[in-house]
Amino acid sequence: MKKYKKEDLYSYTLGTFPTLELIKHQPQLVNKIIYSAKLANKSAKNDINYFCKQHKVASEINDKALSIISEKENCFVAGVFKKIDTRLAAKQPHIVLVAPENMGNAGTILRTVLGFGYTNVAIIKPGVDIYNPKVVRASMGAIFSMNVSYFNSFEDYQKQFPDHKIYTFMLKGRQELQSVKHDKQELYSLVFGSESSGLPDSFLEKGTSIIIKHSDRIDSLNLTIAVAIASYVFSNGD
Amino acid sequence: MKKYKKEDLYSYTLGTFPTLELIKHQPQLVNKIIYSAKLANKSAKNDINYFCKQHKVASEINDKALSIISEKENCFVAGVFKKIDTRLAAKQPHIVLVAPENMGNAGTILRTVLGFGYTNVAIIKPGVDIYNPKVVRASMGAIFSMNVSYFNSFEDYQKQFPDHKIYTFMLKGRQELQSVKHDKQELYSLVFGSESSGLPDSFLEKGTSIIIKHSDRIDSLNLTIAVAIASYVFSNGD
Repeated sequence: MKKYKKEDLYSYTLGTFPTLELIKHQPQLVNKIIYSAKLANKSAKNDINYFCKQHKVASEINDKALSIISEKENCFVAGVFKKIDTRLAAKQPHIVLVAPENMGNAGTILRTVLGFGYTNVAIIKPGVDIYNPKVVRASMGAIFSMNVSYFNSFEDYQKQFPDHKIYTFMLKGRQELQSVKHDKQELYSLVFGSESSGLPDSFLEKGTSIIIKHSDRIDSLNLTIAVAIASYVFSNGD
Repeated sequence: MKKYKKEDLYSYTLGTFPTLELIKHQPQLVNKIIYSAKLANKSAKNDINYFCKQHKVASEINDKALSIISEKENCFVAGVFKKIDTRLAAKQPHIVLVAPENMGNAGTILRTVLGFGYTNVAIIKPGVDIYNPKVVRASMGAIFSMNVSYFNSFEDYQKQFPDHKIYTFMLKGRQELQSVKHDKQELYSLVFGSESSGLPDSFLEKGTSIIIKHSDRIDSLNLTIAVAIASYVFSNGD
């Protein structure tokens, strides 16, 4: 067991909650579950044992491995799982993140959009490694209920999903979010740029460009906030 | 100069952006501006000098002080400012945070709601110290364009602002956010609970309780996400 690196075939869930999500939703990916001899939380222990048994997943006590793979000292449960690049569903709406930079944000975004019913997320390279334990943890294990797939370019993404209507979120967007009408039946992609620079101007021509209006007292909305508001509005839209 | 403690009369802005917001919006609170001999960013240096001169604020090079007050090594600019508890405007809508726990979240919330035009935030104790440099930094200096005030209890808050219509956001909320109609002219307060436990059930009776509907695949929305969506919808509402 060693600290996670991007090129590894396996990654880790750190903490009880994401580990349980892993076992429940992707038992076939689990290599094993590790927990600490010091795990005092009985309900967590029972849950882990119950779901390991139900899904025939191996578990072991291994404090040394835990201290190596986690950077936080008080991590008492971890899962070792195989990384896979999943395919996006062609008949579902997508969230597209172009070059996202921050791991905590990526995890929060996955969790939030799952909450609004989106289960397909495209990441246009370069982008954070969504299998990094920090992303998995920030997603609270939401990643195990979703399809997440990497693309070399936005053009590559569009070639694979030519039927998705494109909505790009940018400060120069031509329509205000609250005035956008979209057909609930249509296939669509909500596209967002990176934390530091947003989407390049070229995305103004790729579909309907949208601005989430805010006062001039702030520069811009955080990426996670923009994705949350957009996905809330689109999933509840007219 | 020493590391910030909650009981101090002064706090610090760490980094160029929040420091500039401090000088521009609250020059009367500034004790002095400190910057590093290593500050290489010319545009930041010019901005600091320009606004210090314009607002008659003292500045000095002091790398030792910077390394003491900041925990990040690469902080090249800081502001020392006097903490004040500001009063909320009685004729404006309010955001009310009941016992917020996380400093990064508090900062992000301040910045986001300012973006949607809210400049008055009540914090019901216990709550994070919003003058902690971590909150100030996460707010990107938004805190210097707002009134933020602490209250010992929600009852104390309501006694001071009896005309504000109360909207509480909770998982047990009786109305879904998208079906809430509110009069744009009314005075109102959007009330949110803590990250770990939300609002207690007693808040169901304090006004109109609202749920931001999400799928059962996630437990709940992050506090920052809930505040962002609610303040977006209310500020753009029908």
